[in-house]
Amino acid sequence: MGKGITSREENYSQWYNELVVKADLAENSAVRGSMVIKPYGYAIWEKMQAQLDKMFKETGHENAYFPLFIPKSFFSKEASHVDGFAKECAVVTHYRLKTDESGKVVVDEDAKLEEELIVRPTSETIIWSTYKNWIQSYRDLPILVNQWANVVRWEMRTRLFLRTAEFLWQEGHTAHSTAEEALEETTKMINVYSEFAEKWMAMPVIMGRKSENERFAGAIETFTIEALMQDGKALQSGTSHFLGQNFAKAFDVKFADKNGKLDFVWATSWGVSTRLIGALIMAHSDDKGLVLPPKLAPIQVAIVPIYKSEEELSEISKSVQIIIDKLKAKGISVKYDNRDTQKPGFKFAEYELKGVPVRIAIGPRDLEQNSCEISRRDTLTKENVSQNGIDDYVENLLNEIQENIYNKAFIFRNNNIFKVNTFDEFKNVIEKGGFASAHWDGTIETELKIKELTKATLRCIPFKNDLEIGKCVLTGKPSKERVLFAKAY
Amino acid sequence: MGKGITSREENYSQWYNELVVKADLAENSAVRGSMVIKPYGYAIWEKMQAQLDKMFKETGHENAYFPLFIPKSFFSKEASHVDGFAKECAVVTHYRLKTDESGKVVVDEDAKLEEELIVRPTSETIIWSTYKNWIQSYRDLPILVNQWANVVRWEMRTRLFLRTAEFLWQEGHTAHSTAEEALEETTKMINVYSEFAEKWMAMPVIMGRKSENERFAGAIETFTIEALMQDGKALQSGTSHFLGQNFAKAFDVKFADKNGKLDFVWATSWGVSTRLIGALIMAHSDDKGLVLPPKLAPIQVAIVPIYKSEEELSEISKSVQIIIDKLKAKGISVKYDNRDTQKPGFKFAEYELKGVPVRIAIGPRDLEQNSCEISRRDTLTKENVSQNGIDDYVENLLNEIQENIYNKAFIFRNNNIFKVNTFDEFKNVIEKGGFASAHWDGTIETELKIKELTKATLRCIPFKNDLEIGKCVLTGKPSKERVLFAKAY
Repeated sequence: MGKGITSREENYSQWYNELVVKADLAENSAVRGSMVIKPYGYAIWEKMQAQLDKMFKETGHENAYFPLFIPKSFFSKEASHVDGFAKECAVVTHYRLKTDESGKVVVDEDAKLEEELIVRPTSETIIWSTYKNWIQSYRDLPILVNQWANVVRWEMRTRLFLRTAEFLWQEGHTAHSTAEEALEETTKMINVYSEFAEKWMAMPVIMGRKSENERFAGAIETFTIEALMQDGKALQSGTSHFLGQNFAKAFDVKFADKNGKLDFVWATSWGVSTRLIGALIMAHSDDKGLVLPPKLAPIQVAIVPIYKSEEELSEISKSVQIIIDKLKAKGISVKYDNRDTQKPGFKFAEYELKGVPVRIAIGPRDLEQNSCEISRRDTLTKENVSQNGIDDYVENLLNEIQENIYNKAFIFRNNNIFKVNTFDEFKNVIEKGGFASAHWDGTIETELKIKELTKATLRCIPFKNDLEIGKCVLTGKPSKERVLFAKAY
Repeated sequence: MGKGITSREENYSQWYNELVVKADLAENSAVRGSMVIKPYGYAIWEKMQAQLDKMFKETGHENAYFPLFIPKSFFSKEASHVDGFAKECAVVTHYRLKTDESGKVVVDEDAKLEEELIVRPTSETIIWSTYKNWIQSYRDLPILVNQWANVVRWEMRTRLFLRTAEFLWQEGHTAHSTAEEALEETTKMINVYSEFAEKWMAMPVIMGRKSENERFAGAIETFTIEALMQDGKALQSGTSHFLGQNFAKAFDVKFADKNGKLDFVWATSWGVSTRLIGALIMAHSDDKGLVLPPKLAPIQVAIVPIYKSEEELSEISKSVQIIIDKLKAKGISVKYDNRDTQKPGFKFAEYELKGVPVRIAIGPRDLEQNSCEISRRDTLTKENVSQNGIDDYVENLLNEIQENIYNKAFIFRNNNIFKVNTFDEFKNVIEKGGFASAHWDGTIETELKIKELTKATLRCIPFKNDLEIGKCVLTGKPSKERVLFAKAY
């Protein structure tokens, strides 16, 4: 445990880095840019996966698995795709090591691949080369497939969860017979992500379109959910892409319609990654540690006995067992921490650091009064509660915490969207943190100029947006709606 | 669907290859040696994963995630490990592509890694380099961690599921303060695998020790479960390794015991992979297609309506909905196939090919009689059954099928273990197929000589083995127990 973590105000970035490590979520590995996801961090990812996978299946998708390696030539087939991804990838050139005369392990130069293999940064190319064999007619469509996988992008500056060379994600890749159906799928999946972010991560997001400049390499349209972190920076939390016929054309994937007419297949892809864990941390946590929404907390309730003698512990443990049974019957995950190597104060601090939503302390006096002390992680408040009906009490409390965390983040987010009408106002907001809601003339040039001047990027053109005639905050040219800019992770 | 598959008798190997593809389980990809696991095959893997993961957690393990890439130098640290794995691995040497003058995408030679990275063939080295930071004292032990991941071994001759360059697996890596505890863990996990194979895959296995020659590279002891396929070849289905202090010494991982005395940490590792899907196919399936044990079947019941008119279909569908609701309430997975593009006969053949354990057909006469026709995939028999109580009937039938599949494989396996006392008898058994239970003098030389002469390998020294004085089947030297040899996948 040690001496606590740097406060957010002191140094937000350091607060995050320390928190990830001290809460046992992840750490840097011996491999530059790659992280080790520790059991506690991975348990959060498993909870995310379980819920997302359920939502994907409820919307008709199946899982499959495609190769890690992609032949280099595949990247050349979709012109904008290669520009977006080829610059940052791990290249496999050999398939054998050997021991040289001096006993050193070296690459065997005789085992050089004819064509280099790229470790997938994303799988559109390998998947569309496969779909070519799966699709002949409209009867083979739609294909609604998702993959849970690791991907590699050679990032120069990395941060645990937020930007690492290797990360875990899911990537949906669907194939359709019409543009309308593909667009509907693109929209459906960004809505699934939005629902997951808001209801499970308790993290409010703004859904919208990306500008041409911020689109996925190879997409016609990219939809995004954007969240606001406590330091006023935006974090892109999930994207869903309408790929048009670009990849079908690149890999020559055609289907015969009911009249036998051939056309290229329409595509979407969509993904979220372990980056969401970074978002979860930064959206809710405080200077004492993690604040986890109950729906994604690996441990929802920690129970700490307060005792002086073995007899007291034994009596307390009997009451605790009854509480555990009641809570488990409600599907609540409980940890009873009866370690005798640590004092209660140490344990309290540990569960605060780890963001356990509810903590229950029970001592001898509680036994007399059939009560216990319940602490909420979100508000750090305590209450004495009867052990009767404690299961209902805790169940309600977990729901209340989930809601409270969301509401807090929602209010913070809404208080940090600023309508700006001049470039000075714009720069002030960006400097201070938050979304600048500004008119923009719709050109890439202006967008890039703004980025150059302020480091702010165009986060999205919100789906729910009032039409409003105005003038571009930089050029003064006409605009018909406001868009959101922010500095971003 | 096409014209069916090659029979096992005709060509067992071809039967397998065709079955995997025609039943939509997997296919070869554009990347040499890497497979695409299709949705139906992946659904089986998901069922396997869910059950195994549950069993790992019930035995106290947690999941985590370690890097895909391992620095080349890590492989040199454990001497026997490098010999076992370095020969067959994918080597990442560069981290960027670029477009050359002619517009071709080429490897950027300026982006050469200082130290090459190996795509993990197994993760002992990267994990023990990490454990070094996690372990100081006995209080940090045991570490009971599992990882679900992809691994790459550069196989020259590949076969779908059985041997592919990339495959999916889980690898448990545990750390202990005593040799006894580590050995207990090694035994516990081979028992978990055995229980999974027998109760879930309905596949009888023999548990035993590997000979020194067949041990995992870096292990002191390897335990295995060996199954017998229908062609009389053995298939190693899971292994659990006692690694002693080898990796702790290689990565200098020491712990202080209660008295403060430093010692190296004791290790185990254990894994099963998508190879199990190959085993599942070959253990039970027949010339009509897959035979899946109900506990791992993605679809347990397929319902096919028999109708001539839309009205008939509509009436049938009403009854079917009631059946579906009843079955789902029991947790049984059902697919109602009301496609109007295919005839019932086509659908019947498809569900036989795909190994759906139970098929229900309902036509107009069934409606009159409140009955339906139930077909079992394992015996290919049919029965007319009342729709009343169909949920209990099907539930029992699924259990019966699970048991029957196991019993059939158990009898086949037991009928194909042959005690042999001469080398001629030995060769006959190996030629014909099955396990040869033979005396062996315990030397690597004899084991290798036998392999050279017969292609049979020493599959295991069974845990449950009678002590019996005898003479080595090849050399005539003394032996105190029989061991199992077979040709193997």
